[in-house]
Amino acid sequence: MIKDDPDLLVRPDPANRRLTQEVVGVNERGERVDARVPVERALTLYLNAQEIVTMMTINDYPEYLALGYLLNQNMLKPADRVTAVDYDEDLEVVVVRTEAQTNFEDKLRKRTQTSGCAQGTAFGDLMEALDAIELPKTRLRTSWLYRLTHAINTTPSLYLEAGAIHGCVLAREDRPLVYMEDVGRHNAVDKIAGWMFRHGQSGADKIFYTTGRLTSEMVIKTVRMGIPILVSRSGFTAWGVELARRTGLTLIGRARGKRFLALSGEDRILFDQDLAYVEGLSAKGRRGEGGDD
Amino acid sequence: MIKDDPDLLVRPDPANRRLTQEVVGVNERGERVDARVPVERALTLYLNAQEIVTMMTINDYPEYLALGYLLNQNMLKPADRVTAVDYDEDLEVVVVRTEAQTNFEDKLRKRTQTSGCAQGTAFGDLMEALDAIELPKTRLRTSWLYRLTHAINTTPSLYLEAGAIHGCVLAREDRPLVYMEDVGRHNAVDKIAGWMFRHGQSGADKIFYTTGRLTSEMVIKTVRMGIPILVSRSGFTAWGVELARRTGLTLIGRARGKRFLALSGEDRILFDQDLAYVEGLSAKGRRGEGGDD
Repeated sequence: MIKDDPDLLVRPDPANRRLTQEVVGVNERGERVDARVPVERALTLYLNAQEIVTMMTINDYPEYLALGYLLNQNMLKPADRVTAVDYDEDLEVVVVRTEAQTNFEDKLRKRTQTSGCAQGTAFGDLMEALDAIELPKTRLRTSWLYRLTHAINTTPSLYLEAGAIHGCVLAREDRPLVYMEDVGRHNAVDKIAGWMFRHGQSGADKIFYTTGRLTSEMVIKTVRMGIPILVSRSGFTAWGVELARRTGLTLIGRARGKRFLALSGEDRILFDQDLAYVEGLSAKGRRGEGGDD
Repeated sequence: MIKDDPDLLVRPDPANRRLTQEVVGVNERGERVDARVPVERALTLYLNAQEIVTMMTINDYPEYLALGYLLNQNMLKPADRVTAVDYDEDLEVVVVRTEAQTNFEDKLRKRTQTSGCAQGTAFGDLMEALDAIELPKTRLRTSWLYRLTHAINTTPSLYLEAGAIHGCVLAREDRPLVYMEDVGRHNAVDKIAGWMFRHGQSGADKIFYTTGRLTSEMVIKTVRMGIPILVSRSGFTAWGVELARRTGLTLIGRARGKRFLALSGEDRILFDQDLAYVEGLSAKGRRGEGGDD
């Protein structure tokens, strides 16, 4: 169970010097400057004896990433019993072991690409599992939304340290619980899915926040995680909106400062926030723009 | 040959109603609003009789996208003779036909994922072809850079119309030549590669601008296109910087307003721009932030 702790359970670690690297360059005046940039590392994922994929990641949570990737690709079912997740730092390999072996060779063959930061995702597989999911009709207060985005924007992060990184946050009401970052935004989503699986967390009372765009793939992953509310500071695509409406997901985009736009499930939003107050808050937030892609 | 025409040869088409869709939602005050969002369409690519991949794209240039994808994946070599590119709108299929058939089954099996907006790219294949390329030591004037980014930011685009889209521009000196947009940033790059192939354009005297991050994959694609200068308004990843240095690519990121940061090939930059003048220019630009992902 999640304790009623004011701190994030998982937060970005901008002080971790493995995650960023200092490089020397020149600025617009020709002056020498030091810059900090995120480090992308190769991580090869195995499911039992089967090599699945090599991912580029900041590699802060290889176990969560491995589990979340397999879950979001429908290669691992929530009911599957995972017996071990072994990570070998030298080999840059993570192995997820399950009690029963699965044959997913067909899935590896039937690969479809998706827009945005896709990972050669078997899109058809993601779709397949959607129809079975019924999202709870969880309400969203706009007062939560503003407190939440303000908390996210002011949390020390790799984004604020080095840019060029995506962030995802699992939240409940107005409180961020798990804040993951990665060079690919789908890695950040997958790490949260892995965290939820490992900690037996339901998505029913959660809100999912992403810096990335609200594409069809982002909608599908959120629905698969059983989360009824998806929020982004970025924009929408038409298919993302259509899928959100079909699955009953509350979809909120372009959430910057006091502004936002809801294009699905807007009947479940309670407009309880005094907007005059938000203008003061958002002026203090530091992540006015971000996602940086 | 490119004519000395002040107009872009290929420009975004925000007035094209196939590329965006109007959807109704509510804003932060609970008021009904109309929003315009980009439409992502499935497009299945064949190389001769072989199905390669299904891409999500705005599908404004299926032929350029098909050619550029195959070139950037190293499935098509610049020397290959393309006999036809057939696009069927009803089937959502594009077929690239070559004189001689190739066996790239191995490549389809050996799939590696990459960070950012990857497309299940065979990363190893992209790397392979890098060593053979020697980029020309083309110089870059900062005055070109500022005129170029100003021109890009003020060109009417789907980004300004609907957001949630990436842009790429092929330029020479201070002049944008081809400006492509797409929901996935790699589609935008691939469409430019396809355009260059079709029109027999060399990359040697060109500059490549992208709204996306300067990841390793973006660097590799630019080098493969033979373009010696890559510019972005977004940030860097460590491996992107390393590859740029190894291949002699001039790499400029965080180019917003008068600011930029060069992390590779900075010796080929001529700092000829009066920066006081740029401040006036950039205040007029509309794409202060963008890429929207």
